[in-house]
Amino acid sequence: MADSKVYMDYNATTPLEPEVITSISEALTHAWGNPSSSHDTGRKAKAIIDGAREHVATMIGAKSSDIIFTSGGTEADNMIIMSAVQHFNDTYCKQVKAHTGQGDADSQMLPHIITSHMEHPAVNVYLEHLKDTGQAEVTYAPLSPTTGRLEVEAVLSSIQPNTVLVTVMLANNETGIIQPVRKICEAVRSVHRNELETQKIFVHTDAAQAIGKIKVDVLELGVDYLTVVGHKFYGPRIGAMFALDLDSNVTPVYPMFFGGGQERNFRSGTENTGMIAGLGKACEIVYNGLQEFANSMEESRNYLEEKLLSTFGERVHFNGKFSSSERLPNTCNVSILGEGCPGHKVLARCQVLQASVGAACHVQNRPSAILLAIGVQPHIARNALRLSLGRYTSKHEVDAVIEDLKNAVNALDAEG
Amino acid sequence: MADSKVYMDYNATTPLEPEVITSISEALTHAWGNPSSSHDTGRKAKAIIDGAREHVATMIGAKSSDIIFTSGGTEADNMIIMSAVQHFNDTYCKQVKAHTGQGDADSQMLPHIITSHMEHPAVNVYLEHLKDTGQAEVTYAPLSPTTGRLEVEAVLSSIQPNTVLVTVMLANNETGIIQPVRKICEAVRSVHRNELETQKIFVHTDAAQAIGKIKVDVLELGVDYLTVVGHKFYGPRIGAMFALDLDSNVTPVYPMFFGGGQERNFRSGTENTGMIAGLGKACEIVYNGLQEFANSMEESRNYLEEKLLSTFGERVHFNGKFSSSERLPNTCNVSILGEGCPGHKVLARCQVLQASVGAACHVQNRPSAILLAIGVQPHIARNALRLSLGRYTSKHEVDAVIEDLKNAVNALDAEG
Repeated sequence: MADSKVYMDYNATTPLEPEVITSISEALTHAWGNPSSSHDTGRKAKAIIDGAREHVATMIGAKSSDIIFTSGGTEADNMIIMSAVQHFNDTYCKQVKAHTGQGDADSQMLPHIITSHMEHPAVNVYLEHLKDTGQAEVTYAPLSPTTGRLEVEAVLSSIQPNTVLVTVMLANNETGIIQPVRKICEAVRSVHRNELETQKIFVHTDAAQAIGKIKVDVLELGVDYLTVVGHKFYGPRIGAMFALDLDSNVTPVYPMFFGGGQERNFRSGTENTGMIAGLGKACEIVYNGLQEFANSMEESRNYLEEKLLSTFGERVHFNGKFSSSERLPNTCNVSILGEGCPGHKVLARCQVLQASVGAACHVQNRPSAILLAIGVQPHIARNALRLSLGRYTSKHEVDAVIEDLKNAVNALDAEG
Repeated sequence: MADSKVYMDYNATTPLEPEVITSISEALTHAWGNPSSSHDTGRKAKAIIDGAREHVATMIGAKSSDIIFTSGGTEADNMIIMSAVQHFNDTYCKQVKAHTGQGDADSQMLPHIITSHMEHPAVNVYLEHLKDTGQAEVTYAPLSPTTGRLEVEAVLSSIQPNTVLVTVMLANNETGIIQPVRKICEAVRSVHRNELETQKIFVHTDAAQAIGKIKVDVLELGVDYLTVVGHKFYGPRIGAMFALDLDSNVTPVYPMFFGGGQERNFRSGTENTGMIAGLGKACEIVYNGLQEFANSMEESRNYLEEKLLSTFGERVHFNGKFSSSERLPNTCNVSILGEGCPGHKVLARCQVLQASVGAACHVQNRPSAILLAIGVQPHIARNALRLSLGRYTSKHEVDAVIEDLKNAVNALDAEG
C-alpha cells in the first residue's frame, strides 16, 4: 500500500509544496497570456515572471537580472559549459594571436575544463561529449580520500594555460558532502595569468542538491555561474541559471536556443509562466524557511544514523562521513556490511523504504563510481544505500524504515 | 476592466482547458516521483508520461515511439534542424569521398536547408544563426503572391546537391494559410538523387498553428519531422517533436542536451511530468473534439468577416484570403484602409479587443514581413490586424469587437 511507504529519496526529487502547486494552478488559470503580448493578458504573465525571477534571485543573493530561466538543471549545466567553451573560442585565439603574431598554430587550441569524478551527468556526460567530439579538453581533478571533497590543491594543479572553466557541484548528491567552492573560487581568482593564458577562469557550481538544505549565496561563494533546479527543493521541474553581472557582459552566456528572443535573447521560447510561478514560490519558501527545514532534516538524519548504529552495530559503515567535511543535513549514505547485502538487494527486500543506491539516473546494481572515487572500498560501495530525508521526515518514519531494513537484512542473511 | 475584454489573439497563445489544468495539478500532487526511480513513486510518474506520449502520438497519427517531449516548440524546431545538419556532417562527406576518392575538397561542404520567408523565429532565427556561423547554407524559396503559399515548384527549384532539409510550417500564424506540405513531401520524395548528392531530403513541418484547428496526420502529410506546441491548442507550455520511425534510425535525431539519458538519450533532463500530463490531456481533447472546435471557430470567424465588411465596406482588405488556398478556420488577417489607421494604432485605441498585428514576439509597429512576402502592399500591410479566434469565441464577442473597432477607427479618422 502506497500510504505505508516511507520515501527517503529526496535527493532524487521532492514532492511539491502545496503552495507551489497552488501558484502553478493560479498562473495557468489566470496568467495564461503570452508574456510577449503587449495587451493586458500578456502583461499579467510578464509580471508573474518578473516576480518569480526576484524570488529566485533573492534566494541565492543575486540580482534578478543575473537569472535566466531554463527547462531544468540539465539545460542550465549544458548551457553554462557551452558558454565557457564558446567564449574561449571567440576570444582566446585572438588574444594569443595578438601577443605572438601567430594565428594558424593556435587554431587547434581547445578550451580546457576542470571538473571532478562526482558530477551530475548533466555535467560529466556533456563534458565527455565535448571531449569525444574534439571540442574541449577535460581534466578530472582527483577527489580527496580523506575529505571526500575536491580540494583546492587538486584544482590548482590541474590549471593549464587554456583553462577556461572549473565546474564542481556545491554538495554531492550521493554523499551529501559540501564542496569547498568558496575556497576554490578564491584560489582560482588569485592565480596569476600571463598574456598567453586565458585571462579569466570561470567557476560554475551546480547547486541542485544544496539549495533548500544549506544557505547558498552566490556572492559569498564567489562563483560566476550557478545552477538552480526546482524539483530538488519542493518546486517544479524547471530550473534557472545564475551568471554574475550578466547585463554588463562580465560573465559570458551564449544561447542554446534561437527564436523569439525571450529571456533577453539568452533563452528563446515562450516562457513557461505556470512553472516559473511555481519556481518563484518554491524559492520564497526556501528563503523564509531554510533554517527550520535544515534543523528538522538534520535532527531526523542524526536520529536515523543513531538508530542504524544501534540496530546494525559494527555492520554499519557510513560513506562520506569525514570529520573534516561538512555534509548536507538530510543525506545519509550507509552500507550494511555483509556479502549478501548489496544495496539493490536490500532495497528490493524492503516493504516500506523507498530509496536508491545512488542517483536516480544511474544503474542501480553497480557500486557507485562516486563512492569509489572518494576511496570507499568496492565491497563496501556495492552495499551502499542513499537515504535522503525531506523537510517533514519524522522520527516515526525513521523507526519504520529501521524496522524494514532489519527485516530485509535478516532475510538476506538467512539466504546467504 | 479585464472581464469586458475580448481576446482574439489565440494564435499567440491559448488559455488552458480546465481539464488540462486538473491533469497538471493531479500529476504534480500524486506523481511527483522521479520517473527514473525504480520504486513505486517513480513508476507512477513514468506511467503518466507513457500515457501522455500515447495521446500525443494518437493525435497526429504517429507511433508513440516517434515522439520526444521537449520544453517547447523552439527547442523542437532547433533540435530538428540541428539534427539534419549533424546528419549531413556525419554522412555526406564520407559518401562523396567514397564515390570520388576525394576527401579534402569536400571538407568545406555545408548542409543546405530550404525554407520560406514566413517561418516562426524558432526556425528562421536559428537558420540565420547557422548561416552566420558558417554551419549551413539557407535558401528562402519565394512565396507565391497568388496563393500566399510556398508552392512545390519554388521548393523543387531550390534543391541543390547538398540539400538535406526542407522546413515549412503547416499553417501560417499571421495569415492562417495552410501550406501544401503533403505535395511538397511527395515532390521532394520523387526527386532523383545521384551519388554525389544527399541521398534523402528530409521534410519538417512546424504544426504549431495547425494542431487543434485542422486535422494533422503525419502519415497523410508524409513528413519526416513535425513540431507540436502545447500552448497553441489549450495545453501547457511544453512541446514535442515527431521523427518518423525514430527507433529504426530512419530519421536522424541528435540530442541537444547531454545528461541522465532521459527520452531514450534524445533529451536528457528529468521529465516535466506535470506539464507532460497536461500536454497529453490537451492532445486527447483535440483528438476527440477537433471537428466541433473547427466548426465553431469557422462560424465565428466567418461572422466576424461579414461584420467587418458590413461595417467598414470598401475600407476592408483581407490579407491572405486567396480563393485557391485553404485557411485555418480561426484566423482573420484584416487591414482597415486609411492613412491614420496603422494596426498598432487601432489596437491601442481599442477598449475591448485584445489582439496583435502579427506574431507576439515580433515588433508591433512595423508592417509584417510575412504579409510583404506574400505580396501585400506596404500601406496595406502596416494596417494589418491579426484577429485569431478560439474554440469558444461567440458571436456576441464578435459584435463587441466590431463596435470597439468602429469607435477606434472613427476616433483615428477624426484625428487624421
